[in-house]
Amino acid sequence: MIKVGIMGASGYGGGELLRWLQLHPEAEVLAATSKTYAGQPVSHAFGGLVPLPLVFAEDDIGAVQGCDVVFLAGGDSASMCLAEPLLEAGCKVIDLGASFRFTSASEYEQWYGEPHRSPHLKGVYGLPELHRTEITDAKLIGNPGCYATAALLALAPCVKGGLVKNDSIVIDGISGVSGAGRSKFGLDYHFAEMNENAWAYRIAGTHRHTGEIEQELSSLASAAIRVSFTPHIVPMTRGVLVTCYATLAAAMTTQDVLQIYQGFYNHEFFIHVSEALPRTKHTCGSNMCNIGLGVDERTNRVTVLAALDNLGKGMAGQAIQNMNIMIGLDETTGLKAVPLWP
Amino acid sequence: MIKVGIMGASGYGGGELLRWLQLHPEAEVLAATSKTYAGQPVSHAFGGLVPLPLVFAEDDIGAVQGCDVVFLAGGDSASMCLAEPLLEAGCKVIDLGASFRFTSASEYEQWYGEPHRSPHLKGVYGLPELHRTEITDAKLIGNPGCYATAALLALAPCVKGGLVKNDSIVIDGISGVSGAGRSKFGLDYHFAEMNENAWAYRIAGTHRHTGEIEQELSSLASAAIRVSFTPHIVPMTRGVLVTCYATLAAAMTTQDVLQIYQGFYNHEFFIHVSEALPRTKHTCGSNMCNIGLGVDERTNRVTVLAALDNLGKGMAGQAIQNMNIMIGLDETTGLKAVPLWP
Amino acid sequence: MIKVGIMGASGYGGGELLRWLQLHPEAEVLAATSKTYAGQPVSHAFGGLVPLPLVFAEDDIGAVQGCDVVFLAGGDSASMCLAEPLLEAGCKVIDLGASFRFTSASEYEQWYGEPHRSPHLKGVYGLPELHRTEITDAKLIGNPGCYATAALLALAPCVKGGLVKNDSIVIDGISGVSGAGRSKFGLDYHFAEMNENAWAYRIAGTHRHTGEIEQELSSLASAAIRVSFTPHIVPMTRGVLVTCYATLAAAMTTQDVLQIYQGFYNHEFFIHVSEALPRTKHTCGSNMCNIGLGVDERTNRVTVLAALDNLGKGMAGQAIQNMNIMIGLDETTGLKAVPLWP
Amino acid sequence: MIKVGIMGASGYGGGELLRWLQLHPEAEVLAATSKTYAGQPVSHAFGGLVPLPLVFAEDDIGAVQGCDVVFLAGGDSASMCLAEPLLEAGCKVIDLGASFRFTSASEYEQWYGEPHRSPHLKGVYGLPELHRTEITDAKLIGNPGCYATAALLALAPCVKGGLVKNDSIVIDGISGVSGAGRSKFGLDYHFAEMNENAWAYRIAGTHRHTGEIEQELSSLASAAIRVSFTPHIVPMTRGVLVTCYATLAAAMTTQDVLQIYQGFYNHEFFIHVSEALPRTKHTCGSNMCNIGLGVDERTNRVTVLAALDNLGKGMAGQAIQNMNIMIGLDETTGLKAVPLWP
Repeated sequence: MIKVGIMGASGYGGGELLRWLQLHPEAEVLAATSKTYAGQPVSHAFGGLVPLPLVFAEDDIGAVQGCDVVFLAGGDSASMCLAEPLLEAGCKVIDLGASFRFTSASEYEQWYGEPHRSPHLKGVYGLPELHRTEITDAKLIGNPGCYATAALLALAPCVKGGLVKNDSIVIDGISGVSGAGRSKFGLDYHFAEMNENAWAYRIAGTHRHTGEIEQELSSLASAAIRVSFTPHIVPMTRGVLVTCYATLAAAMTTQDVLQIYQGFYNHEFFIHVSEALPRTKHTCGSNMCNIGLGVDERTNRVTVLAALDNLGKGMAGQAIQNMNIMIGLDETTGLKAVPLWP
Repeated sequence: MIKVGIMGASGYGGGELLRWLQLHPEAEVLAATSKTYAGQPVSHAFGGLVPLPLVFAEDDIGAVQGCDVVFLAGGDSASMCLAEPLLEAGCKVIDLGASFRFTSASEYEQWYGEPHRSPHLKGVYGLPELHRTEITDAKLIGNPGCYATAALLALAPCVKGGLVKNDSIVIDGISGVSGAGRSKFGLDYHFAEMNENAWAYRIAGTHRHTGEIEQELSSLASAAIRVSFTPHIVPMTRGVLVTCYATLAAAMTTQDVLQIYQGFYNHEFFIHVSEALPRTKHTCGSNMCNIGLGVDERTNRVTVLAALDNLGKGMAGQAIQNMNIMIGLDETTGLKAVPLWP
Repeated sequence: MIKVGIMGASGYGGGELLRWLQLHPEAEVLAATSKTYAGQPVSHAFGGLVPLPLVFAEDDIGAVQGCDVVFLAGGDSASMCLAEPLLEAGCKVIDLGASFRFTSASEYEQWYGEPHRSPHLKGVYGLPELHRTEITDAKLIGNPGCYATAALLALAPCVKGGLVKNDSIVIDGISGVSGAGRSKFGLDYHFAEMNENAWAYRIAGTHRHTGEIEQELSSLASAAIRVSFTPHIVPMTRGVLVTCYATLAAAMTTQDVLQIYQGFYNHEFFIHVSEALPRTKHTCGSNMCNIGLGVDERTNRVTVLAALDNLGKGMAGQAIQNMNIMIGLDETTGLKAVPLWP
Repeated sequence: MIKVGIMGASGYGGGELLRWLQLHPEAEVLAATSKTYAGQPVSHAFGGLVPLPLVFAEDDIGAVQGCDVVFLAGGDSASMCLAEPLLEAGCKVIDLGASFRFTSASEYEQWYGEPHRSPHLKGVYGLPELHRTEITDAKLIGNPGCYATAALLALAPCVKGGLVKNDSIVIDGISGVSGAGRSKFGLDYHFAEMNENAWAYRIAGTHRHTGEIEQELSSLASAAIRVSFTPHIVPMTRGVLVTCYATLAAAMTTQDVLQIYQGFYNHEFFIHVSEALPRTKHTCGSNMCNIGLGVDERTNRVTVLAALDNLGKGMAGQAIQNMNIMIGLDETTGLKAVPLWP
């Protein structure tokens, strides 16, 4: 059994890791830490976890000593300091935050507006469908953001294949409210005000996921790419849907593009490509990402959509997928649960 | 591996059986039938089931030939006719409808307003916490209604122990919209009209679950019991919460009653009793039933609450729990998934 | 034009008063105070009020000087101190909180657990359908709680008419989340945790509205009445639904009881009695209270339901109805807006 | 008093007209027709309208004889046939459907896939902020679609002013479920399936509103414009939010563009422009459209957002605004209600 630790485990990422790992046949959670709930049973933070006997430990690396894999779910500032001693202690580290997603610390600093405390540490960008080989050998993973996962899976075949003009990409994203996190929430997310409400919360290149999307697309294109990305919040708990627009480099039909996508993701268990337009609820509670697309021959643009569960393939599910790869297990181990319906 | 068939599998009960059984280590679904979707992959009815290769069969008992266990999920009229030939063919049968919940066919006829087509067949009422021994030997299970499961688990310790006056019981229920089923839905359940809306849909002893609740409570009390039961629908997808009121036969404190309940359900994996008031979301996607209670010494009444997922412990989860018992497996096999949060 | 002041106007009660009064042909808001938003336009607290030029004043009685009517919407502690100087300055005062709902200060202290700071001030209980004459002459109104309004309107004809046994009353309430208020909210009301969730938040005689319900029912019955009341919260923004149970003193049919109710509320514009079961959304944004009922001859109990908008007839709408009566206007002035649908 | 008739009044458009007109000081509804509810009180279709004594008439033009203004709310096929006889009878006609939105019948036929039955009738496109003068003299109005209203109000200042490249426009729209209408609804909109779900329902230039958006933008630009438009549905009842992207023709800052927009809409009561990003709930139940924007200097694109209530400024509110203009009333008469909050 793989011994797992989770630091900062009382947020939504931590709770989702506990849920997935409870079903994982090859891993067991040895320790889960929490600043707020230290010393209390996990069911105090997650009322549904009453059958789990686990108690939150102090949020200190001592708590995860002896673990093979440690997930960092306590936020960027914490992760930047924790990764190094954990790596030195021989743990594999998977960070759910942004600290180790960038190939250069200065990119992190530019998008997150604070100095990086471990600029010499290099993580692997943990999107298995694009970086599987590097993940296999990695000690430190920067687990991608939820929007970034969806946008990159939607755009990778187009951009890598040179199908679209690099300066034409627009990404429109919709997210459920759990994407806003559990700890820092204000009146905007009060049920009474969030219900029956929808809005864009960042526009014109100011959302932080823009940075990692551009880094990865530029790498796929071997050329600098800048995108317009607008995240929206809507009254649902889970789910991310991105709608990506790009101008085709040469005329193609929907079927042409669809074939390229189906080829690209042919052997990927967690990616489902079809002509049907994806719905977020078809991924809820699972590690799936569903992709659909269409070409508008009038405007010569392709529209590609991707749906996923922001806490599944967009966070904890993908983190466990990375763990499986790093450990040498079948990538789908413990991750085959289908979504809830309805 | 237990060979399982599901008849009428394209509704919410069928979909939930498919979801749970996909995680079950000792059972596999050989056939799932559907009138509407015969010949189509299950993902046409349940978009999230894209990874499952299963195709719906014609809704005919030939399709489930050779199955060890058959679940009937296609509605009462269908179940009444299907049970007998399946039993004769050697299958164990678990009916998700009401046809085999009553000890006498005339009770069924009174509450459901139609003649029973197999009045000679006797099912066992499939509430394991009350009827485990009979279920072990049963060939035919009448799987309880969702409200009835919650109300009976909430009231059984009180009524069996003679703690309350038999004529004082009031049961108030709240249900998510999936309880209304998938096939016969009208304008009431249009999202635009159901959202931001709550109402009671049956009052004054007219809801059909009243019958099975009274049957089981009367059996526990060894006396005829009639209850007032009001079901309400509120804008959520899953979840049942019942709030039960009864006058105490003798003065007791909250702690007194709590101890009796904790004793009663001490060895039950799926029942969690605590002073904390239960919330439906803490059971969402699981097979748990959470119970809380309090005594009002001013009025000498006890209030007992029970929360469960109407498609889990209130339907498909409980059906699989029954299957496990009938087959001789550990009751919790394949049913330990914790709820989604948030 | 009636000159109106609102103190503590940046919560949900204050916002709803601003909304209703903006449509009132005989009243204008001269001042709205707020601790949090003093000096800022009202649209900073209520983004939809961009067309209103009003700016929040400091939360001080100086701000409402010269007003004919002042609404107190800033919470009980504030109201207890503000009422006296406002009355001395010649204002009519309508308190949306609980401070002046009780006929004795000790009742307030018992239910609210704090000393009353103006125990000598007597308010009139502002439920026009029961206290219209006293309201006409009142200077100080204790505007009823939302659950209390619904429960009293549902039970008054029964209790006043002696139709039911006084010790048999059970009240089950469902409320939208706006009932929890705007200022003191925690993780429970985070959209991600409240969505798809339902629970009872007080049981066994511990919710504060129990006190005012019992006071008014006892007065109607000329006998001490104690009730069992359980409030539930469900994932919707507005709406209260109460389901009340009581044992009939003598056998009656649904039609018998219905006629008594229709007679009782015959001339009431805001009360609609019918056999149809009321739905909260049919009152959303209006000042209506819809009542339905049924008798279960098997148990000899009557079930009466009442639905209203907790911010309308359950709070701000009713407060303006009280203002109209106190000022001598037609009671429905400015209050005839029908509910939003859908 | 203006005498008003509404044909096809039992859908969401009709219900919203009834709600708004009940508050209108200069208009009264003489007749409301319905195929489904003919002969029944309007409260049978809209449970909240219990205080209105109106009864649905047969859906025949005889019912609206003598009306000054007739709203057609019964769908495109009906409207195409009804407009001519009503105009001949001297009524002013406002069609809530698409039949009279296009300057040529062939455009209608291309987007709606059916022959136009009154191709010789020319309507005025009823967007007052762009066509006020023509509306003043019009007898027949084609009331714009909800998405089209939002997109055109968001883009008009840019496109008319030549600020953006005509071939660069991408429009991403989000709508509540009431936009899908009341009469033709299927499993997709079942609360249990629509809740916690989001998806795009038309992509790549196939949604019908694309046609009227392109017609009006082309007219503003005096050049043929084609756009990419993707409508999404999310789990809320009311509300449209569009996010529009376009490449700037020359470098500009956010403040530059904002000033142009504020100038453009300076005297418009129903349009509110600000740097704050608009939220749909801030328009709920009102006739407002709120606009926000930002320039991304990295990509040289401007993002403009517009939020409105799809049944308000997106349908019935705008239709009444058109009526006011046609009749010579102040445009805001009866339309000043502020949105519900929360």
